[in-house]
Amino acid sequence: MNKVITIGREFGSGGREVGKRLAEKLGYAYYDKEIIQEISKRTNLATEYVKQIIENRPIVYYPITIGTTLHSSYNDVMIENHTSIMSELSNILVEMAEKSNCVIVGRCADYLLKDYNPLRIFVYGNMEEKIARCRKKAPANEKLTEKQLIKLMKQIDKNRARYYQDVTCCKWGCKSNYDLAINTSSIDIKAACDMIVALVEKD
Amino acid sequence: MNKVITIGREFGSGGREVGKRLAEKLGYAYYDKEIIQEISKRTNLATEYVKQIIENRPIVYYPITIGTTLHSSYNDVMIENHTSIMSELSNILVEMAEKSNCVIVGRCADYLLKDYNPLRIFVYGNMEEKIARCRKKAPANEKLTEKQLIKLMKQIDKNRARYYQDVTCCKWGCKSNYDLAINTSSIDIKAACDMIVALVEKD
Repeated sequence: MNKVITIGREFGSGGREVGKRLAEKLGYAYYDKEIIQEISKRTNLATEYVKQIIENRPIVYYPITIGTTLHSSYNDVMIENHTSIMSELSNILVEMAEKSNCVIVGRCADYLLKDYNPLRIFVYGNMEEKIARCRKKAPANEKLTEKQLIKLMKQIDKNRARYYQDVTCCKWGCKSNYDLAINTSSIDIKAACDMIVALVEKD
Repeated sequence: MNKVITIGREFGSGGREVGKRLAEKLGYAYYDKEIIQEISKRTNLATEYVKQIIENRPIVYYPITIGTTLHSSYNDVMIENHTSIMSELSNILVEMAEKSNCVIVGRCADYLLKDYNPLRIFVYGNMEEKIARCRKKAPANEKLTEKQLIKLMKQIDKNRARYYQDVTCCKWGCKSNYDLAINTSSIDIKAACDMIVALVEKD
């Protein structure tokens, strides 16, 4: 069976960087945003729409009533799209795990690939360092105040938590759902990667 | 400054084994139960009493009234003892950190030695594996049923959490208070130690 490493991460914690570095160091395939694009291709739904569904869960499961008329068709389409997206997400993740050793960032891969016994890593950090990392990576013309940035970061993590809860019925970021949780505010990302490589290569 | 590694751990997770192995591998001093004995020596309080205070927090902060008489002397003694114990705990931990590189298990050392910038590790596991580990280490004449054992394990962790909360005002086991959280149900203890050694030696 191929080796699979999954990375859950708080926004701004450098989880993606951990994933990329690990994949490079280990010679594993690396998957992140490619997953959204592939779902979009297979479902014929726009990438942005797939992303919206997966990252913001805008699903209305209850019928909409206007006056005395029941309008359920919109909801039916939403539910159908959501089902297709989730089904393709599972298929794609399984294909990735079957194809080669790989590192997968986000997308509830820790849960959806549990039969592949992945090394489930969660990367987190203190708000101060996460803000600094976001500022460093932001485009030069970004105008967000600190308050706006914190609000945005919290909202993104809230969406991730909600989506994770929806798919797995478990709490996002709760250590019992992971094998290793790494605080990148105190552990340097390069050192963290070397440490994980030491663990994986020992296995 | 000496290197300090602190280990918080759920009962049955093998945290003590992680600490011992790490100390051996790194050539660091190892401290665990010795701390209680040293406090007992310095305060002239019985080891069991010190242990009880530190592990079960039996402190009554409110005055006892019987009829119209206020009996505060018992409470005064308890508070005085608790203050001495906590004061000596801090002193001893600082002395240990000043003396040499070391691994310290429990005793809120992650918080009390924060000025020494310790590597703060938390070791946890799933109940099933923790029970199996407890059974393996139990004396041959132990008669606890599974239900009794689980109750005991939960009570010990509850006490640890309460004590940690008292001393640090933070949540015991919450990943944000640690640098690294390791699930020994999925990561082998020897491999975990090699991984931590790789991290420490990189530093």
